[in-house]
Amino acid sequence: MAAVKACNILITGANRGLGLETVKQLLENSCQKHIFATCRDPDGPKSEALRELARKHPSVITIIRLDVDDPCSIKESAKKVGSLLGNNGLNLLVNNAAIVARGTIHTSRVEDMKNTFNTNVIGPLLIIREYLQYLQTAAKASGTPGMSCNKAAVINISSVAGSMTRKPSNHIQSTVLPYSMSKAGFNTLTVLAAEELKADEILCMALHPGWVKTELGGEKAPLEPKESVEGMLRVIGSLTEKQHGGFLDYTGETIPW
Amino acid sequence: MAAVKACNILITGANRGLGLETVKQLLENSCQKHIFATCRDPDGPKSEALRELARKHPSVITIIRLDVDDPCSIKESAKKVGSLLGNNGLNLLVNNAAIVARGTIHTSRVEDMKNTFNTNVIGPLLIIREYLQYLQTAAKASGTPGMSCNKAAVINISSVAGSMTRKPSNHIQSTVLPYSMSKAGFNTLTVLAAEELKADEILCMALHPGWVKTELGGEKAPLEPKESVEGMLRVIGSLTEKQHGGFLDYTGETIPW
Ligand SMILES: NC(=O)c1ccc[n+]([C@@H]2O[C@H](COP(=O)([O-])OP(=O)(O)OC[C@H]3O[C@@H](n4cnc5c(N)ncnc54)[C@H](OP(=O)(O)O)[C@@H]3O)[C@@H](O)[C@H]2O)c1
Ligand SMILES: NC(=O)c1ccc[n+]([C@@H]2O[C@H](COP(=O)([O-])OP(=O)(O)OC[C@H]3O[C@@H](n4cnc5c(N)ncnc54)[C@H](OP(=O)(O)O)[C@@H]3O)[C@@H](O)[C@H]2O)c1
Repeated sequence: MAAVKACNILITGANRGLGLETVKQLLENSCQKHIFATCRDPDGPKSEALRELARKHPSVITIIRLDVDDPCSIKESAKKVGSLLGNNGLNLLVNNAAIVARGTIHTSRVEDMKNTFNTNVIGPLLIIREYLQYLQTAAKASGTPGMSCNKAAVINISSVAGSMTRKPSNHIQSTVLPYSMSKAGFNTLTVLAAEELKADEILCMALHPGWVKTELGGEKAPLEPKESVEGMLRVIGSLTEKQHGGFLDYTGETIPW
Repeated sequence: MAAVKACNILITGANRGLGLETVKQLLENSCQKHIFATCRDPDGPKSEALRELARKHPSVITIIRLDVDDPCSIKESAKKVGSLLGNNGLNLLVNNAAIVARGTIHTSRVEDMKNTFNTNVIGPLLIIREYLQYLQTAAKASGTPGMSCNKAAVINISSVAGSMTRKPSNHIQSTVLPYSMSKAGFNTLTVLAAEELKADEILCMALHPGWVKTELGGEKAPLEPKESVEGMLRVIGSLTEKQHGGFLDYTGETIPW
């Protein structure tokens, strides 16, 4: 099975949900690596589980404050991570943090549309911008041709809700209109970032985790975080330049835009 | 040739560019109709050409103030238009107004991303919301089955720059990243609005005008506004429920999302 061997990994929204589960599963994997587990409130109650994990694995996990909504916090986090990375660079950046907002044409609130766009689109763009230099360092350092997540990659955790072609037979999409519009913007960001990162051989693609039982996914979701993240890490570990600029789900199936 | 016969038409950004050209061409067409030509500054210098047109055709054109960025102005415009429409309803709503902002991953400004999303996505959503009642009135009043722009329709003037599948061989898309992300959100809005408007038999689709010589399109664009709008009106006039929720260009060709 393809495995994520990337040495230096950064993930946003690592304190709960799929982000936290991803950190856990990366730990199980025996390869030597360092995980920059970022969250917006490292000392708050919602980060207790992540702190516990970091206490057990102090040489592998570094918790870093990163509020996706706050450009200054993004810049500061990049400075800090940069100083810790030294000459090795960052191999894998996972844009995972996101918020959901419900609404239809009738009920979507302007504030919700602005907030989802900020957190789910503008934030990830600024993160890519600030961390790009470290991804470039890793890509150059790798010495291998082509693309892979063990060399240098940006994985954008998107959603099928941002897809234009899968009509929502169950109307999931239309009741989360602000979220869907933001994830479509995020998918555009993925495609255009892929164009820009190509010359540096930095892989960039969008990944849908499935519908998963988390605070965001809700109780009715059919998947457990464990299964979703196992699938996503399998997909991430197997990526090559063929999937650059693409959109896959946690089983590896291509999703139409 | 299919022609736009819709009785009551509203268009945003009608004071210049493709919006103004659309008003002009609708006037040439002999069918009886009323055009609500909206713009954000009806008394300003940028609306002189529209005012001139309205002076010549006072029984056909009513200029209405509508600033797409201002929810209050959208509400007020709808109240005013509603009082003028009486029992006939609105047959055709054209969401044409938009702004462009340039930028790449490196250079896109946060303010530009917020502004393009406000004007190009949130504004049109609020406009659909406020005018929906009048579109429903028109749909009910028509007495004909199916969908058409002469019955009740929302036409969203989008852009191929918001398409995920047409890779920009000439890098047009990646240099207008904020605009592309907003138009992708606008396309999602189109698809989800189409789902919601289906039951009322109100047609909703996205239309790409081509690359056109306007302030937005720039001097290098190959198309004149005349040709683009002739094509768009031909397409609009020929729409049926088959194109509901779809994405076409001014020649009638389907654009992949
Ligand atoms: N669950 C699903 O069914 C599903 C389906 C499709 C896609 N996804 C995607 O999968 C990703 C993870 O979702 P999830 O299900 O794990 O959601 P979740 O359980 O609600 O977790 C969301 C995470 O994002 C963080 N976050 C939100 N806003 C942030 C900000 N401004 N700065 C930093 N962190 C922020 C949260 O931190 P706080 O604790 O500080 O709030 C939390 O760690 C998201 O991109 C989501 O869109 C999920
Ligand atoms: N031209 C092209 O090559 C091209 C290509 C693809 C798609 N499009 C789309 O076609 C549509 C028309 O573009 P265009 O080429 O005619 O652009 P344009 O010449 O720049 O005209 C834009 C129009 O939108 C109006 N507008 C902007 N912000 C507004 C606001 N907040 N409230 C009300 N009106 C506002 C402008 O009014 P002011 O005078 O007050 O600024 C103007 O009337 C847009 O949706 C654009 O995205 C154009």
